[in-house]
Amino acid sequence: MLDLLEKRHAPKAPELAGLTVGDVIAMLETFDPSAPLMVQGESGGFEEVLGFRTTGVVLNVNTAEGFGPHDLPDDGARADLVAVVLRSTER
Amino acid sequence: MLDLLEKRHAPKAPELAGLTVGDVIAMLETFDPSAPLMVQGESGGFEEVLGFRTTGVVLNVNTAEGFGPHDLPDDGARADLVAVVLRSTER
Repeated sequence: MLDLLEKRHAPKAPELAGLTVGDVIAMLETFDPSAPLMVQGESGGFEEVLGFRTTGVVLNVNTAEGFGPHDLPDDGARADLVAVVLRSTER
Repeated sequence: MLDLLEKRHAPKAPELAGLTVGDVIAMLETFDPSAPLMVQGESGGFEEVLGFRTTGVVLNVNTAEGFGPHDLPDDGARADLVAVVLRSTER
């Protein structure tokens, strides 16, 4: 029982290979602050970045081609962590 | 002739509605620095952010669905500006 509880509450963040908000700030500080920030479009090209929002996400729930591995929790389910998600022009 | 030169050299940045690197740093500083930064996947879900690179881009050259409006210059063509482009897990 205790083992099970520990498993549920183990922090999920160490599973992530990507950058934190703090990492990203440190990297961006090395570039020209007047340069536009862009992301790749779904099929190609580059889109501008419009802003950011926070959302609870569950980790490693998608495996289908074209889908990011993480997603919104199902209704009533608990998020693994709160992520900051980038909003771009088209999405 | 001078009019034409002025047109070619007019800065393109004011056409952009998106955020600069400096804007993004200021926004990100309002969030928990330990939160992961994510972007939406091509078809859904969220991907982690791996890093950034700079690249010359030409503005407003793509109109096809699913493509960002900006793109790499053709071989030998001049870029309109240098953008900082985000690299995510899958793209």
